[in-house]
Amino acid sequence: MKSEARESDRRDPFDRIFHPANIAIMGVSAKGNMFGTGILNALEAIKFSGTIYAVNPKGGEFNGRRIYRSLDEIPVGIDFAIIAVPAEKVPAALEECRRKGVAGAEILSAGFSELGTEAGRRLEQEIRDISAKGIRVVGPNCFGIYCPRSGLTLLPGPDLSRETGPVGFLSQSGGMSIDFAHIGKWMGIGFSKVISFGNGADLRETELLAYFGDDPETEVIAMYMEGVDQGREFFKVLKDVASRKPVIINKGGLSEAGSRAVASHTASMGGSGTIWKSVLRQSGAVQVGDLWEMAEACLAFSLLPPRVFENITVAGGGGALGVSACDIAEQFGFSIPMLEPHISEAIVEHLPKPGSSAKNPIDAANPFTSPQAYRQAFLNAAKDPRIDLQILIQLLYHYKVLAMSFGNLPVKDVAPYGEFAEMASEVTAATDKPVVVVMPNLKQGREALDIEDLIREARAAFLAKGIPVFSDLGNCLRALAHVSSYYARRKARGHEDACRTY
Amino acid sequence: MKSEARESDRRDPFDRIFHPANIAIMGVSAKGNMFGTGILNALEAIKFSGTIYAVNPKGGEFNGRRIYRSLDEIPVGIDFAIIAVPAEKVPAALEECRRKGVAGAEILSAGFSELGTEAGRRLEQEIRDISAKGIRVVGPNCFGIYCPRSGLTLLPGPDLSRETGPVGFLSQSGGMSIDFAHIGKWMGIGFSKVISFGNGADLRETELLAYFGDDPETEVIAMYMEGVDQGREFFKVLKDVASRKPVIINKGGLSEAGSRAVASHTASMGGSGTIWKSVLRQSGAVQVGDLWEMAEACLAFSLLPPRVFENITVAGGGGALGVSACDIAEQFGFSIPMLEPHISEAIVEHLPKPGSSAKNPIDAANPFTSPQAYRQAFLNAAKDPRIDLQILIQLLYHYKVLAMSFGNLPVKDVAPYGEFAEMASEVTAATDKPVVVVMPNLKQGREALDIEDLIREARAAFLAKGIPVFSDLGNCLRALAHVSSYYARRKARGHEDACRTY
Repeated sequence: MKSEARESDRRDPFDRIFHPANIAIMGVSAKGNMFGTGILNALEAIKFSGTIYAVNPKGGEFNGRRIYRSLDEIPVGIDFAIIAVPAEKVPAALEECRRKGVAGAEILSAGFSELGTEAGRRLEQEIRDISAKGIRVVGPNCFGIYCPRSGLTLLPGPDLSRETGPVGFLSQSGGMSIDFAHIGKWMGIGFSKVISFGNGADLRETELLAYFGDDPETEVIAMYMEGVDQGREFFKVLKDVASRKPVIINKGGLSEAGSRAVASHTASMGGSGTIWKSVLRQSGAVQVGDLWEMAEACLAFSLLPPRVFENITVAGGGGALGVSACDIAEQFGFSIPMLEPHISEAIVEHLPKPGSSAKNPIDAANPFTSPQAYRQAFLNAAKDPRIDLQILIQLLYHYKVLAMSFGNLPVKDVAPYGEFAEMASEVTAATDKPVVVVMPNLKQGREALDIEDLIREARAAFLAKGIPVFSDLGNCLRALAHVSSYYARRKARGHEDACRTY
Repeated sequence: MKSEARESDRRDPFDRIFHPANIAIMGVSAKGNMFGTGILNALEAIKFSGTIYAVNPKGGEFNGRRIYRSLDEIPVGIDFAIIAVPAEKVPAALEECRRKGVAGAEILSAGFSELGTEAGRRLEQEIRDISAKGIRVVGPNCFGIYCPRSGLTLLPGPDLSRETGPVGFLSQSGGMSIDFAHIGKWMGIGFSKVISFGNGADLRETELLAYFGDDPETEVIAMYMEGVDQGREFFKVLKDVASRKPVIINKGGLSEAGSRAVASHTASMGGSGTIWKSVLRQSGAVQVGDLWEMAEACLAFSLLPPRVFENITVAGGGGALGVSACDIAEQFGFSIPMLEPHISEAIVEHLPKPGSSAKNPIDAANPFTSPQAYRQAFLNAAKDPRIDLQILIQLLYHYKVLAMSFGNLPVKDVAPYGEFAEMASEVTAATDKPVVVVMPNLKQGREALDIEDLIREARAAFLAKGIPVFSDLGNCLRALAHVSSYYARRKARGHEDACRTY
């Protein structure tokens, strides 16, 4: 027993926390009515890769699983603990973990400094004191850690994905963590780790950001922040990490009322919005306004090459679409240049007539234009050396009318989304200019659930080929603008640094 | 026959166009392969209220329906004609209509000035000349008229709603018209008329806007414009109409590339973006950036009272939600004031503990808080005289986990959306302060179509009670800001005018 604990000790504590060989859950009751039972069920549902030990001083059994009375009863060393006991019992449970040699614990329980009471603050200080003696703590008042590789999951997260990916997400808010993990699942964002650190008694933004900066599994970092503990140190780390990996930050509470809401939510000092904005800008981080903008930026950063995009094509069926695309593109700093006449001519040859136009935007005249025609359009447009990226607008809902006219076929059988995904990925590979897809749904009525189903299938088909999909052109261009301006800034700074060296 | 034609003549031509006793469709082929067949099928599908006469010089039968060789063969007078013959045959068809005494015709055919050719321009001039002799024309190069009351529908519009409502929509672009009509159907926007006027050879923005201004069926006017024919006259009419009814305008082609796309789309002169923006501002119209913003503004204008909203409450389950709400509210000029302590206390009494907070934003601690608790929250908050409007954020997707834990019940059976709709409508009636709902969907995966289904059912339940529903808080507040600032401007102008009188 002791030797196994010592064996574990040789591994890096963060590695033992994120990829634990085993977990102890403190606070699983035989009656199944405690907080810890929820996380136990979630870990079983998501098929956590290691061994789970349930712990409760009362002992007993839950769903055929033995409940240990204490960590000492467990015959092996423990890597990671989940503490879900009432607030006043948390310090004793954490101390028990520390004595057992546990590398880290996430404390899901609430009832600490966020209450704004003296008792709450004192309990949190006890956690801090125990942690300082040699155990890392995530929380309290948090939803914990989600790590798809090992199968750790957030508090109400039984149905999260086990697929890993490049995005690491940090959040003071538990709600934001679980929401972001859920959005990521269908939007196509793969996670290395999601960490909800709540009140952040020990581990919090600065150290976790530095960890993500060095973590080889994490290539894109996203954060939801309400306040900051050590501002100067945080911004130093942020500047360093953001110079190596994109760091996308959603700072909540930039408004006056928002800052008041922050105080009653995670007990952080919000700070002035103006100062935050300017400091974040200087740090080289990517600033986003909400969860959706953050998710779309993460998707773009994880699926697109690290480049500056300036000139794009937009192709789809329907003229007003093109007009609107141009207006939005300009707003986000992109240009939709008119293609050379010989390129336009080569494209328009493959498009339906009348009604098509290939000056850029490329108007394919109707929403049923074939993947083959678009292939020719994109391959030809890519020959224009100015073009950096191409956008395909897919109005799949129109296929419903087509499906009806073919004797009420299922719309999924009529829309050639698989061929479109194939085409987009082939064109991207052949031209080294990414094709990005926008698939809005204008028919969201109760009778048209089959269109939503089609769009979701199609999104999955594009994502399986590494093609990012957005549901709105404006949001797509906003995300692309984040990628582009991040790498433009990095390029400019690299240039500055090079100049300084001489 | 002649007497019947004269009988029709006594009615107002616009009334005969929008509510025709009968229609002639020029261009229905016995083989069913002509353009006119599509609109014939659509009119039958939507159950047009009057009689339809199919016309083709070749005669014959289609689906058991007689095809008349000419209008003269039809034994009664005709109110309205739909012309769907090849461009070069359009002038003759239109002249035939005029001689028959038809009040107006929509010309769906393309191949006129939008081609940019001399031949196209000449054909369009012929249409204009015939029209000047006594027949109103919508089009050419358009998708026609949708009028739910009479059952006229747009080109690919067999599945539009027959429910009428206060919104009149004008558009040069056919695609925008059909898209907007589809969005309106599920978003809860009822239409008086939707008019796609394409190249606008006769009827176009100025006259149609003036018509909507006087039309008692139209209370809210929305327009998608690419260019304008008679700028000075249009802005005079716009200023007048906008002082009486909200006019929401989406001007396409404000950017440089957009303006180029406009030229190849509807052959309009786009004009400088800066000039347009400033002229629209001076006119008192509501300017929106795209179709979604226009739809959400129409929803808000049609379901909310004509008022200025300044102070709001936001209630929902989850703290970071409240923080984000405050930030967004400030951005759109709303205030989320802290409620009086006695009001907060009265509210928090009904909310789950711990974790709830009722300072405003009202954090209901978890997403399963009952409609009864929210009723108390909203009724109490409404006692604060500053509060103008209340927002309920409903995270219905959370009910999936609840449904699963109840032995995999259908999520629609578990989420009490009907009671929430009841509550929202009762609170609105009792307090005269509207309750508005935001229902985002964070679980859009292929496996979670039941959540989308639930949200659509819930939206319909709220709409049936007259409660507007938005899918995103930012979009909701943007729409509310349009309503609020429109009525604030009208109030300010009314005041100015009153001062001028003395």
